[in-house]
Amino acid sequence: MRFRFLPKEFNFFDLFDRQADNAIEAAVLFSDLTSKGAVEEASLKKMEDIEHRGDEATHGIIENLNKTFITPFDREDIHKLAMMLDDVIDMINTIVSRMRIYKLSGVNMNLVAFSSVIEESVRAVACAVKGLRNLKNAKSIMDSCVEINRLENVGDRMRDTVLANLFETEKDPITVIKLKEIYQDAETVLDVCEDVANVVESILVKQA
Amino acid sequence: MRFRFLPKEFNFFDLFDRQADNAIEAAVLFSDLTSKGAVEEASLKKMEDIEHRGDEATHGIIENLNKTFITPFDREDIHKLAMMLDDVIDMINTIVSRMRIYKLSGVNMNLVAFSSVIEESVRAVACAVKGLRNLKNAKSIMDSCVEINRLENVGDRMRDTVLANLFETEKDPITVIKLKEIYQDAETVLDVCEDVANVVESILVKQA
Amino acid sequence: MRFRFLPKEFNFFDLFDRQADNAIEAAVLFSDLTSKGAVEEASLKKMEDIEHRGDEATHGIIENLNKTFITPFDREDIHKLAMMLDDVIDMINTIVSRMRIYKLSGVNMNLVAFSSVIEESVRAVACAVKGLRNLKNAKSIMDSCVEINRLENVGDRMRDTVLANLFETEKDPITVIKLKEIYQDAETVLDVCEDVANVVESILVKQA
Repeated sequence: MRFRFLPKEFNFFDLFDRQADNAIEAAVLFSDLTSKGAVEEASLKKMEDIEHRGDEATHGIIENLNKTFITPFDREDIHKLAMMLDDVIDMINTIVSRMRIYKLSGVNMNLVAFSSVIEESVRAVACAVKGLRNLKNAKSIMDSCVEINRLENVGDRMRDTVLANLFETEKDPITVIKLKEIYQDAETVLDVCEDVANVVESILVKQA
Repeated sequence: MRFRFLPKEFNFFDLFDRQADNAIEAAVLFSDLTSKGAVEEASLKKMEDIEHRGDEATHGIIENLNKTFITPFDREDIHKLAMMLDDVIDMINTIVSRMRIYKLSGVNMNLVAFSSVIEESVRAVACAVKGLRNLKNAKSIMDSCVEINRLENVGDRMRDTVLANLFETEKDPITVIKLKEIYQDAETVLDVCEDVANVVESILVKQA
Repeated sequence: MRFRFLPKEFNFFDLFDRQADNAIEAAVLFSDLTSKGAVEEASLKKMEDIEHRGDEATHGIIENLNKTFITPFDREDIHKLAMMLDDVIDMINTIVSRMRIYKLSGVNMNLVAFSSVIEESVRAVACAVKGLRNLKNAKSIMDSCVEINRLENVGDRMRDTVLANLFETEKDPITVIKLKEIYQDAETVLDVCEDVANVVESILVKQA
């Protein structure tokens, strides 16, 4: 990279905080929708709005990353963290959008269970990411990461059980197609949360 | 990296131009196939040939990247750009191959519409990538990127509408399985075009 | 990166050897399962154990990468290699887990054929990765990479034939859903092996 006159520092932490809050908002909305068992127009609008703000925060981080000379940790890790936090929100948005397209209605207890694990995991992600502002938080950040990993395992087993049950009991192939995809998407949210935790951990190790 | 005696420069732009042309050829072929509603042996051969040339161009870029000391922009961005342009071609190839395997025949107006948006987006991708040769083109490159992003949104809405309609009207589950996958693949091509646009934008920002 | 007092070197090769052996174990187990046509509790336990050891090896590599100042080749390539070897094992684990969840039983000759190609490819991957310890092995490493690429093409054609046949002959949509996913997963294992080969090749080129 060539040397240039650039703003020397930019406060990435503020944008990461904002993005962590966007992710929590998305997870809470998803919990609401599943417990109501309906995706109304108002919730869809709200979800789109969260997704839009998520895109803006990501864009802001990447743009400033390209323009900033001094960064609080490895540029590549900032980039990954921004992309993955955005993936969390996008994936929740995808599920909500599919629930509407597939005209799923009525409370599905499996989705309620998934949304609750997802909300827990996203809250832990937000703790970990917000903690990075001060490395004195290392211990509590690590605790959040351990929790995120635990919840990913919970999600894995949940998906396996729920899918085995779906193939056992549901005889309508079209319903199988719809629910199988949405259950797998739900588990993917937890995978992406784990990706975030892995980046956070590697940031901590490098700073140690 | 260790210092070595290496050819100092390599013209990456020529290979990127060639790869952009390969991508356009793939998109045009896909448009032809969908408007004819048939995947004949001759088109399959042509698609395989494009895909093969695409692999060669990608391989040429990566190989020279590893051997070249001075690169026109960040090595990592060159690598990403090469991989993603190849992904565009591979994804179109995948769709064509599935159309044949699934024995889809007859003109499907949804696929015709998708292929037209894909062709537009791939042409904008080619403009953006070819423009990188001269940064005086920055303005028109950015215009192409904006257009690619717009077309990705168009594709998103198109997929949602088309899938909702498929689940509403198609009662044969096997047909649902086939078409759902192909519509989602078609939208994925536009996602990958957007990935290219993101890399191009970040190259511009860094050079600014 | 800041300068720090760190252990100067760490033997990455030992962990890569171990991970290559884990991958072979997973592939052999998969061959056993498919030829027996049953996923018993004991095999599942064994698969989980392999996957767990795989995670440990990956974690060990990444952790030491973050703490080690001098690495035998580009840090990024070590990171990619570790992640991709883990992906090979994870993907085989996913297939085995799906076979159980979907209650597939009885010998499926297509899966037997896939598992045999996968075992060949994973053995070639192990040769390539273990060879990196001594660059005098460059010729035989390259031979392994060529073989991995060849097997990926074999797998591509196998999947196309098998899927065409599935849609031609299988009339139960639920069975189509299950087998289609598993055949595509099987081909994905070969894609990931090819990803490993690509990283290995680029390591060789850089060291040349």
